[in-house]
Amino acid sequence: MSPVDEKLSELGIALPLPMAPVANYVPFVVTGKLVIISGQLPAVDGSVAVVGKVGEAVGVEQGQHAARLCFINLLAHLRDACGGDLGRVRRVVRLGGFIASPPDFTQHATVMNGASDLAVAVFGEAGRHARSTIGVPALPLDAAVEVEGMFELD
Amino acid sequence: MSPVDEKLSELGIALPLPMAPVANYVPFVVTGKLVIISGQLPAVDGSVAVVGKVGEAVGVEQGQHAARLCFINLLAHLRDACGGDLGRVRRVVRLGGFIASPPDFTQHATVMNGASDLAVAVFGEAGRHARSTIGVPALPLDAAVEVEGMFELD
Amino acid sequence: MSPVDEKLSELGIALPLPMAPVANYVPFVVTGKLVIISGQLPAVDGSVAVVGKVGEAVGVEQGQHAARLCFINLLAHLRDACGGDLGRVRRVVRLGGFIASPPDFTQHATVMNGASDLAVAVFGEAGRHARSTIGVPALPLDAAVEVEGMFELD
Repeated sequence: MSPVDEKLSELGIALPLPMAPVANYVPFVVTGKLVIISGQLPAVDGSVAVVGKVGEAVGVEQGQHAARLCFINLLAHLRDACGGDLGRVRRVVRLGGFIASPPDFTQHATVMNGASDLAVAVFGEAGRHARSTIGVPALPLDAAVEVEGMFELD
Repeated sequence: MSPVDEKLSELGIALPLPMAPVANYVPFVVTGKLVIISGQLPAVDGSVAVVGKVGEAVGVEQGQHAARLCFINLLAHLRDACGGDLGRVRRVVRLGGFIASPPDFTQHATVMNGASDLAVAVFGEAGRHARSTIGVPALPLDAAVEVEGMFELD
Repeated sequence: MSPVDEKLSELGIALPLPMAPVANYVPFVVTGKLVIISGQLPAVDGSVAVVGKVGEAVGVEQGQHAARLCFINLLAHLRDACGGDLGRVRRVVRLGGFIASPPDFTQHATVMNGASDLAVAVFGEAGRHARSTIGVPALPLDAAVEVEGMFELD
């Protein structure tokens, strides 16, 4: 078991089976040492668990939970991309966070911390990443949050 | 003629002359084996062919058509980046889809399939890509859809 | 002093101390020859200098000024990523521009030119970049503009 898997186990996180994309694309592409992973929704058991807009029906803490779920789904695909061995991940390079929210919402960064904090909890220093976070009017399937990721392998 | 060009011809697609960017930047940059292509609008003959919001004035099928046009414009620049030889493309790595649409719209993924389906029709397995799709309140020149792309060359 | 530093001096631009990220992530990650820099806000002396929506409280020229400030903040982090020597930058690869604006706004490209024009003024031909620009309903801390960047080092 790699230190990353030990950390996941310690955090009580069991990675789900990776969810199939909702359309004609693939969950990830490996190019050189980079893994580019498609935008993930806060899905649990194949359906979106947190729907609606953060700052309206969805509170900031629920939004953080949604961002955390997105990152867990990124990890499930990343494990696939590594042939099952998360110990091959050298670095979380970049996360892109999309927060479905109204024009008067400004706490996008706080919501996105749900993903970023888990990245650092799981990978330690190697989990510290570049990040862009923006508000959006809506997301596929009315998801509250979507997170995409770029990772570097050994 | 490369297999990709044959496929385009079979699909009845003649790539346009690449449209000049609407501002002070370039259509693509090659870095290592990657080609990064600027966000493309659904332009035909130099003007945006599908304007307005998907889910309001623009229907979902029209939105798919717009996404397809964006991908055709990506291909026009990609051919330039390859020195005219699309046979040098090893892989569609990532597409980013931006769908101008209101907060109650949730079919962004269906709209974006207009681009993804064409990628797979043209490149086959090598056309299967990572993807992020989001709603946006509006796009440059009131375009209904914008698609950006990352490709890998041989 | 590298030609880039000379150009900055000629333009009267003193790069600020890089602003710390507003949450649990890092300003940039270097992977291979690429520097990926987190989305930057139009911050001056640690607080966001241009807030509100472009096309409402914020005019287009103010928006351009905000985009220019974002690029200056990108440069501050880029200099750090280069160990202080901006002469090591081979190329501005890509800028992503997010313009907080209402659904009827369509001049996103004009606003983003505030960043793109400065990139070309500072780096010359090497400053010409791929670019995607979109509207968003709102940004972290109510910033009017956010710009993220990808750069190639020697």
